[in-house]
Amino acid sequence: MAKVGIVLLSGGLDSATVAAIARNEGYDLHAMTFLYSQRHKIEVLFAERLVQHFGIKKHIKIEIPSEIFQTALVEGSNISVPKNRDIDETSIPETYVPGRNILFLSYALAYGESVGADAIFIGANAVDYSGYPDCRPDFFEAFKKMADKGTKAGVEGRGINIFAPLMYLKKHEIIKLGISLGVDYSLTHSCYDPFEDGSSCGNCDSCILRKRGFAEAGVADPTKYRE
Amino acid sequence: MAKVGIVLLSGGLDSATVAAIARNEGYDLHAMTFLYSQRHKIEVLFAERLVQHFGIKKHIKIEIPSEIFQTALVEGSNISVPKNRDIDETSIPETYVPGRNILFLSYALAYGESVGADAIFIGANAVDYSGYPDCRPDFFEAFKKMADKGTKAGVEGRGINIFAPLMYLKKHEIIKLGISLGVDYSLTHSCYDPFEDGSSCGNCDSCILRKRGFAEAGVADPTKYRE
Repeated sequence: MAKVGIVLLSGGLDSATVAAIARNEGYDLHAMTFLYSQRHKIEVLFAERLVQHFGIKKHIKIEIPSEIFQTALVEGSNISVPKNRDIDETSIPETYVPGRNILFLSYALAYGESVGADAIFIGANAVDYSGYPDCRPDFFEAFKKMADKGTKAGVEGRGINIFAPLMYLKKHEIIKLGISLGVDYSLTHSCYDPFEDGSSCGNCDSCILRKRGFAEAGVADPTKYRE
Repeated sequence: MAKVGIVLLSGGLDSATVAAIARNEGYDLHAMTFLYSQRHKIEVLFAERLVQHFGIKKHIKIEIPSEIFQTALVEGSNISVPKNRDIDETSIPETYVPGRNILFLSYALAYGESVGADAIFIGANAVDYSGYPDCRPDFFEAFKKMADKGTKAGVEGRGINIFAPLMYLKKHEIIKLGISLGVDYSLTHSCYDPFEDGSSCGNCDSCILRKRGFAEAGVADPTKYRE
């Protein structure tokens, strides 16, 4: 029987690469995408294209009520998206979303246990996002321990694995790996502050990291920027 | 400034008692209630009455998509609610809901960090519900450790406390404590399998524990049973 994996699919470059990795390792995938009134709501459309691209059979979309998260990434928030700044990799960025990965992983765990999943895949990365507490390896270890204590699967020794295969990769390494696995990055999207036609701002943290990654990978960037 | 607490309020006897305890300890409360297509959807109405009873200003209601949980407690599930059985306190009951408290606490944590909460209050109990892995003290300890690693508040040393003040109390002790704090238990509801008029079945695990609790507390049970 094929192993079952739950992949958190935002429609971004990282989660697309993770889906390709999990599929390449033989997992039968279910995708989960979260809608949280984010400025990058357009990512959901990209997630749907990726689901098609990868032939994923089940796509769960979860709406998080707007009262839950308060951050620069969420519409209607009065914090603006930082632009053209030096990305300081040690302090916690303003774009931190309280409890985001905790909530996303908890959904994946609850759903994953219901469908008998073997593993959860998440595109967290401690190189470019070391400032986010919920992107660091010690957080994932603690989450796994908690999940093993708090689920039937965990208590019975069939605990669901949590894999963050991009954890120690730089952006250009992620891109090269994805290309070797057949990812079409024109179907992905990174901008925190996109235009309505789907083009990217080109100067938020996420666009800066993406552009730099393609440049360092020596791969043409398929993203449409409007600067 | 008053301490802020998030209370998980199901409309049941336990969570009502927890709200009274937290209020008595001086917390300014926000209530969270989860809707998950459960057979006891009627609890939400009871939760709303309790919110009024306690003068809680903010009541967040979260809808969990029906795809997430698969259990005897969820409508449309093909597992039936066990009736009139001996409650075996060591094995994991059929009414276990995968990842339920993990998901609920994660919501409370994300929302709580956004609003600057000091603590989360949950009515978990290891006496009557020792079979549920997500009701045991070691799970809550692991959740707190995970939360301290994965949130800004935790990393900065202002970690949100997680209190389960009913953990070691028997049902009759919970009822006596609640009555001493002014809880009106006619506003609460426990049945896993209620009738449409809001009356209780009287013979599911939850009704059995409730009836036994009132009897042992020597307090009249205000619940309407139809057996």
